[in-house]
Amino acid sequence: MDNSKSKCVLLTGGAGYVGSHTIIPLIESGYEVVVLDNLSNACKGDEGQNPVPISQVEKLVGKPVTFYNVDLLDYDSLSKVFDKHNFCCVIHFAGLKAVGESCIIPLTYYRVNVSGSINLFQVMKEHNVKKLVFSSSSTVYGEPQFLPITESHPVGQNLLNGYAKSKYYIEGIIQDLCNSDKEWFVIILRYFNPVGAHPSGILGEDPTGIPNNLMPYVAQVAVGNRPCINVFGNDYNTVDGTGVRDYLHIMDLAEGHVSALQKLQNADENGAIAINLGTGNGYSVLQVIDMFSQVSGQKVKYAIADRRAGDCASSYCDASFAKSYLGWEAKRTLKEMCEDTWRWQSLYPQGFSTKK
Amino acid sequence: MDNSKSKCVLLTGGAGYVGSHTIIPLIESGYEVVVLDNLSNACKGDEGQNPVPISQVEKLVGKPVTFYNVDLLDYDSLSKVFDKHNFCCVIHFAGLKAVGESCIIPLTYYRVNVSGSINLFQVMKEHNVKKLVFSSSSTVYGEPQFLPITESHPVGQNLLNGYAKSKYYIEGIIQDLCNSDKEWFVIILRYFNPVGAHPSGILGEDPTGIPNNLMPYVAQVAVGNRPCINVFGNDYNTVDGTGVRDYLHIMDLAEGHVSALQKLQNADENGAIAINLGTGNGYSVLQVIDMFSQVSGQKVKYAIADRRAGDCASSYCDASFAKSYLGWEAKRTLKEMCEDTWRWQSLYPQGFSTKK
Repeated sequence: MDNSKSKCVLLTGGAGYVGSHTIIPLIESGYEVVVLDNLSNACKGDEGQNPVPISQVEKLVGKPVTFYNVDLLDYDSLSKVFDKHNFCCVIHFAGLKAVGESCIIPLTYYRVNVSGSINLFQVMKEHNVKKLVFSSSSTVYGEPQFLPITESHPVGQNLLNGYAKSKYYIEGIIQDLCNSDKEWFVIILRYFNPVGAHPSGILGEDPTGIPNNLMPYVAQVAVGNRPCINVFGNDYNTVDGTGVRDYLHIMDLAEGHVSALQKLQNADENGAIAINLGTGNGYSVLQVIDMFSQVSGQKVKYAIADRRAGDCASSYCDASFAKSYLGWEAKRTLKEMCEDTWRWQSLYPQGFSTKK
Repeated sequence: MDNSKSKCVLLTGGAGYVGSHTIIPLIESGYEVVVLDNLSNACKGDEGQNPVPISQVEKLVGKPVTFYNVDLLDYDSLSKVFDKHNFCCVIHFAGLKAVGESCIIPLTYYRVNVSGSINLFQVMKEHNVKKLVFSSSSTVYGEPQFLPITESHPVGQNLLNGYAKSKYYIEGIIQDLCNSDKEWFVIILRYFNPVGAHPSGILGEDPTGIPNNLMPYVAQVAVGNRPCINVFGNDYNTVDGTGVRDYLHIMDLAEGHVSALQKLQNADENGAIAINLGTGNGYSVLQVIDMFSQVSGQKVKYAIADRRAGDCASSYCDASFAKSYLGWEAKRTLKEMCEDTWRWQSLYPQGFSTKK
């Protein structure tokens, strides 16, 4: 099949947090989007309806989105989706992503993330779809050896959890795949810390159970779902002793995928290239809590707790390669990240399962 | 199921070179052996018969060996084998092993080696079989940073092929598995260069196509199947300029697995422990060719060719940890390695498919 002129993109894990937000600028940029998700971590819709995040996206873009409830481990069903569509490219978001959980059930993480990716790449190869954007993570860098973290920072050293290792392994598999077949062109996006929500307030991050990440936890405290947030360590060598991270607005991240896709289609290149997606600025835990309190008008209660094993003092990226190579840079401020999170959390205090 | 007193061992890939030879000392040590293999790389038997290497083993041990033609990627069939037997332990030999081929079809290597291992570990976990011997490789060390290579030599750095990376990834998955569940006890055996054959001459290495490794190639030249062997580089900093490797007799290696199994059953330990299996001595390519010529009485013709990318000058292990921890050491000499290879090659010039 000739897919050189297709503008049809497959999003694996497209019902998840990053995937669902990415649909919007893709459609606004003229792409046709097909979403595939096993809904292991997404809010299902009513009988016969698309999952809730996809329905919300459909409201925002004003058109239907094709959705398949398919697991990447189900080779035959996956292959059938490729038979039906003429994909120009795949954006591979699907994967488990809770660092703590990956230490408890590592085999599940490796099965879903690594075996799932291998299946996907095999099916892509069989259908001659050889352009891929892969959702990797800044965790592949391990504890930063220098700051800001550039793409040439060592990867794979002393990775302390199955999540980070699974992303590192998949990067390695992609590298070998590209070395073996010069028709492949893969952009590996190493996300720093995606936060925030669509500015409409009707689409956002919907963690199941206790949030693993700072921003959704802070939002749940602000809205009254949880009494208090633990801050793990206030004796780091940072501006106020709490950990510093590179938070990135989800809509900036979503737009980064569009830039990557355009590069894949327009550049006559091949091979695998890794790119940091972050703002290049770090904010401390207390700075985030403080900004969220200001924006929401709620006092966010916190308690200082012991450091967590595996946490580092600071992590933020050198974002210059994304700018020079993709022509992309993050534009939204920490204030907007907090405002948009708060709008979503206020409208949907129980996430997508909130009765409207 | 209580498997604490079982002496029944599952050998994945048990019809392969290392697997088939290992059955013999296992049975001699009182173990009951069940072999599982997908026969992707082994000589099939006649209709209704066990594969040829297993039949040969049965002749040598004088009793039948239970065999299943099952692929590790077939979760349900694998699970059924575990339902039928009360395994104390698994020795996981199964995997693709041709370094060069892994650069050409990496996805196949990752699928078979990594996804296959993840499936196996999941089925083991579900059946409460948590003792494992894993066939790893000295290739996880990459280019040696010092010699002899101890187990604390860095692993995973600058691995140049999918074979080595797949073994390194599986080691990483095993490490996480053991960290997540303290009931697991895994011995990772990092093989150096297994060569030779059973001294009977009726069981040996049966490579399909052009041999990837030195010894079977030399043997095929000696027996007249091939005219000449290429020696890749004679300007290395070694005794005679040709590459030096740590060759290990297959029966020594087989016995190393018995020692590992006994350790798993008798030691009250847990976690994952990596052990080098080698002699601790290096021999050059020309030393091997010379010894083979002496032993076989055949002049083995060779030609000096360019160095191959990815080859290092010398690689040999520090074998002391295997001795102290397992009570195992290699006993057989290079002369015995060549003699036994030659006996096998003379009796079976076309390998197992030789018409007898």
